[in-house]
Amino acid sequence: MRFFSDNAAPVHPAVFAAMAAHNTLDTAYDGDALSRSLDARFSALFETEVRALWVPSGTAANCLALAALCPPFGGVVCHRDAHIQNDECGAPEFYTHGAKLMIGEGDGAKLTPDSIRAVIDIIANDVHRVQPHAISITNATEYGMVYMPAEVAAIGALARERGLALHMDGARFANAVAHLGCAPADLTWRAGVDALSFGFIKNGGMTAEALIFFKPDLAADTLRRRKRAGLLLSKGRYLAAQIVALLEDNLWITNGAAANAAARALAEAGGARLVYPVEANEVFLRVTPEEAAGLRALGFDFYDWAPGEIRLVTSWNHTIEQVRPLAEAIAALP
Amino acid sequence: MRFFSDNAAPVHPAVFAAMAAHNTLDTAYDGDALSRSLDARFSALFETEVRALWVPSGTAANCLALAALCPPFGGVVCHRDAHIQNDECGAPEFYTHGAKLMIGEGDGAKLTPDSIRAVIDIIANDVHRVQPHAISITNATEYGMVYMPAEVAAIGALARERGLALHMDGARFANAVAHLGCAPADLTWRAGVDALSFGFIKNGGMTAEALIFFKPDLAADTLRRRKRAGLLLSKGRYLAAQIVALLEDNLWITNGAAANAAARALAEAGGARLVYPVEANEVFLRVTPEEAAGLRALGFDFYDWAPGEIRLVTSWNHTIEQVRPLAEAIAALP
Amino acid sequence: MRFFSDNAAPVHPAVFAAMAAHNTLDTAYDGDALSRSLDARFSALFETEVRALWVPSGTAANCLALAALCPPFGGVVCHRDAHIQNDECGAPEFYTHGAKLMIGEGDGAKLTPDSIRAVIDIIANDVHRVQPHAISITNATEYGMVYMPAEVAAIGALARERGLALHMDGARFANAVAHLGCAPADLTWRAGVDALSFGFIKNGGMTAEALIFFKPDLAADTLRRRKRAGLLLSKGRYLAAQIVALLEDNLWITNGAAANAAARALAEAGGARLVYPVEANEVFLRVTPEEAAGLRALGFDFYDWAPGEIRLVTSWNHTIEQVRPLAEAIAALP
Amino acid sequence: MRFFSDNAAPVHPAVFAAMAAHNTLDTAYDGDALSRSLDARFSALFETEVRALWVPSGTAANCLALAALCPPFGGVVCHRDAHIQNDECGAPEFYTHGAKLMIGEGDGAKLTPDSIRAVIDIIANDVHRVQPHAISITNATEYGMVYMPAEVAAIGALARERGLALHMDGARFANAVAHLGCAPADLTWRAGVDALSFGFIKNGGMTAEALIFFKPDLAADTLRRRKRAGLLLSKGRYLAAQIVALLEDNLWITNGAAANAAARALAEAGGARLVYPVEANEVFLRVTPEEAAGLRALGFDFYDWAPGEIRLVTSWNHTIEQVRPLAEAIAALP
Repeated sequence: MRFFSDNAAPVHPAVFAAMAAHNTLDTAYDGDALSRSLDARFSALFETEVRALWVPSGTAANCLALAALCPPFGGVVCHRDAHIQNDECGAPEFYTHGAKLMIGEGDGAKLTPDSIRAVIDIIANDVHRVQPHAISITNATEYGMVYMPAEVAAIGALARERGLALHMDGARFANAVAHLGCAPADLTWRAGVDALSFGFIKNGGMTAEALIFFKPDLAADTLRRRKRAGLLLSKGRYLAAQIVALLEDNLWITNGAAANAAARALAEAGGARLVYPVEANEVFLRVTPEEAAGLRALGFDFYDWAPGEIRLVTSWNHTIEQVRPLAEAIAALP
Repeated sequence: MRFFSDNAAPVHPAVFAAMAAHNTLDTAYDGDALSRSLDARFSALFETEVRALWVPSGTAANCLALAALCPPFGGVVCHRDAHIQNDECGAPEFYTHGAKLMIGEGDGAKLTPDSIRAVIDIIANDVHRVQPHAISITNATEYGMVYMPAEVAAIGALARERGLALHMDGARFANAVAHLGCAPADLTWRAGVDALSFGFIKNGGMTAEALIFFKPDLAADTLRRRKRAGLLLSKGRYLAAQIVALLEDNLWITNGAAANAAARALAEAGGARLVYPVEANEVFLRVTPEEAAGLRALGFDFYDWAPGEIRLVTSWNHTIEQVRPLAEAIAALP
Repeated sequence: MRFFSDNAAPVHPAVFAAMAAHNTLDTAYDGDALSRSLDARFSALFETEVRALWVPSGTAANCLALAALCPPFGGVVCHRDAHIQNDECGAPEFYTHGAKLMIGEGDGAKLTPDSIRAVIDIIANDVHRVQPHAISITNATEYGMVYMPAEVAAIGALARERGLALHMDGARFANAVAHLGCAPADLTWRAGVDALSFGFIKNGGMTAEALIFFKPDLAADTLRRRKRAGLLLSKGRYLAAQIVALLEDNLWITNGAAANAAARALAEAGGARLVYPVEANEVFLRVTPEEAAGLRALGFDFYDWAPGEIRLVTSWNHTIEQVRPLAEAIAALP
Repeated sequence: MRFFSDNAAPVHPAVFAAMAAHNTLDTAYDGDALSRSLDARFSALFETEVRALWVPSGTAANCLALAALCPPFGGVVCHRDAHIQNDECGAPEFYTHGAKLMIGEGDGAKLTPDSIRAVIDIIANDVHRVQPHAISITNATEYGMVYMPAEVAAIGALARERGLALHMDGARFANAVAHLGCAPADLTWRAGVDALSFGFIKNGGMTAEALIFFKPDLAADTLRRRKRAGLLLSKGRYLAAQIVALLEDNLWITNGAAANAAARALAEAGGARLVYPVEANEVFLRVTPEEAAGLRALGFDFYDWAPGEIRLVTSWNHTIEQVRPLAEAIAALP
């Protein structure tokens, strides 16, 4: 059984059904009715007027957002372990035309107002230094931890104070919201977030993420940047259908909750081996190479994150029953 | 009935079935077995060793190809009516980091060795002028005309003579091959093509095109550029499945032939109104605004291409029977 | 005697003297008193508040201006023979991060409102087409012709009407102003120009041009772009000194007038051989290869512009006496 | 007396004289005899065939070099305190089209093979991570320390082993060579350096640095990038003249030695207050705010580098006699 990545999970049946239901002739690109409905659907979800664009990857969502928030000669504060810094092969630099990522620290890949200040307060405001223009945080983080609304709001307040924009990489936004049980609005614009990469692919989708602008004016140029990046897919209705299916009856939260529950089951088994609190769907455990080999011999697959450390990721389709054998195997480690 | 664009056509049932058949846990990105099979499948199809990458749009395929073939300070010769010049919102400039498109002329959006020479022979080879590095042709063209193998080969010979690379935008490659009945190899690498954007989306696919490198060495950097552009989708197996389904039993040619046949039926009705010979799945007709309004009143929809000129595009799912009412309506125009 | 280019001319003694006079310890970059005086000096010259930045080349001035006026996904309308299109090796695309030059026509490298409309009116305002954001004109043009204030104003009015910015490449602005005898303001901001590349190098300078923003707000980001491009030279006071010397007592106009007078002397000799009216310091003549060879045999050097056409450029240091032998040789051609 | 920066120093009389001596009509750009002589002059200096290009700033030299050595999707290892990281407003990212600077550590702004390995050994060689392509070191460093030939060679060996290119930012190369008394070749290509930014401006020049390629093949594309960046100045002979004047009789080493000697005099006075060994022309001292104010009250000006730390920079024109009052004032601090 594979716990490698939630990207490896299958597509939710409702997503497939929605694509099939719309497998008819329609307008190309994003001119179809489903695509045009996204603004209203997300505005309702977020209880404010937003603009919502589908894109085919989280990297695309993140980097279009950064390009909207930071000029080529600016900088974006992010965590040392942020996906945009480590796992996108320089996509932020490509989309922003060379903006600089400014690296902050913090436990569990979480930035704090203090750790952000430590980055930006030392930057002289002259023409020689790249100036910060935005902050990007990931929720849930790359280590499966969750920013609470108040934590985001504290960063949002700092951002406003310093004239910085705030982006949230929500590749696992569903897991964060499912964990917190809060209103999506509380975790985003009410806390100062300007743009959100709202992940659906890890959550049961196939090829569609949503990029949400809480400042609607930011969207216009991004429509052009999306086209210019080859991201305005010809048959966008199939992407919109995926998103609509996952929004329906809050299936996205249901899916996020399922993955979280599976992770919690593993976490309880992990006990003192846990590297980070398990608040979403990722479990990092301290195991010896021999122990890791033992788990693999039992048929479990996962990522060797660092020496003596493994990463287990659960997905929307993992049930407690399904992950129980792994939980028991972990608990049985000497 | 809509004849707006083959991008508006639905997805072929075999494509859907293939995606559903692979809706299981697998490796993320392009690590799955289907994605890894593409090199071999396309190498067999093209009778030579190629590298094949899925991408989610034709613009992405075109522009990754151009970035592989032309440095930021170089130029790409293309037709005035080329998709890369007119319909990609500057994507070639984005992906190449600012290379210049050099505009050539020719009937029906076809370049010729002479029209290419007219562009490049006047460029002094000094450091002040952008130097050409590549040629890009579209087959079938934006006006539904087809380059024959010998025509491509003549351009390929010029390209080699001048040290230029040759790219083919094959958004409607299926229509071209179906029209010619030739081996795909004869229309591409045997004629000097270095990279091909092999279109599947207009041909019954959903979100997958293939970028083919006939010089395998060109692919390595492109794998990084694809990631860096946010185009390495998380669940690539669903893209690979689409392509594999359309390659199976040459379904792509069957689909291209169907669209072509429907277009020919319209063309025969169009007679002297035809702006260009109909060799693929696009029909351009001279009609007055009143005539256009009349056709629309009958329930047909299409693109007003230019004053006094409309564009009708047929798709893989159009049967002769289905297009007959439009053909008759055209024939009945006064 | 060389008539190749005004770039080949020596540096005016007053420029040298000014640099020597300031050859003392001072603040680096543009923090020195001379650099800081430029805003005020040019504001006085142009009778309005402007921001003025030195840069070391005309290409740099042009392309920083374009980057300030046009986003990466936009377009700049310019003449087919514009320096930015032909002679800057893609610098506009580099500085703007891939904006597209949109090519217009017109006699003597002059755009007109009609020729600009012919470019932009056919661009559908959708996300697929690059949209125009700016117009760039060259005054005096690459063919030595001069836009009059009313001609610029007509283009400026069109620009405002369409929401486009207007840039003037004034590599030979001195020659244009000397020809017209108008106020610099009338030829620029009063006629709708937003940014001017004000050339000094061809006019007796060494390494300094001025980039003038008539909308002062445009300057702030450009200060960063200038640094980021490696154009914020360490010892900027020597650049400022050059400009200040040429502004003093309107030496720049005196120098432009001298070059123009020398060109007029050649033009009178050229008579029916003139390809364009001679309004600045460039003379294009129709001569056979044999005639060109004959002139060269007499010791005159110049550029073979096109088959049967030569270009003669006069400079600030050419006196009527000095060019008389060439004028006589031209007049003596059979 | 100002010790702010060697960029604030005046221009050496020999440099002025050389420019004046060549103040005649000549070929534009880099077609003049002086510019064309640079390859041979630097080849002689470095005892191997090199290509040498003038550029008007150190930032330009550095970033053209990096663009030649690293693709847009690659990375460049540099020190946390490197000029390219901190003081060029993102110019490396602009010139390379978005390559990533990878930050290493080390005393006195010096990288070591170990500190470089600490950066690159943790980068998985997959398509998600930006891969290192080059290393950039500064000699003398931003803290006035000098890499010895053996230290550079150790880094060069690592670079070759890992397939990385090696760039040296030699804004103060003269100070390093003057300190070491070594052959320039020993500090560069014999130690594995591929490209050198050879600084002349801080060393008595006005607007000219040299970019040296020890692999001549790297120069061709850079000639185009230089033009494309607006750095191919129209009257390049005045830049070449500066460089030639400073090469003559090794004036560059004489100037570097003078600045170094002045710095040593200050360093001896600084004693235990020194933050770094003084090996070039920069002196960093620990002083209280009151002490700094006291020095300023005596008429000395300098940079407040960090809390409790000041930077004093000497220049080619500082004599021991001239800096003695400052040395005495430092020695007299309580």
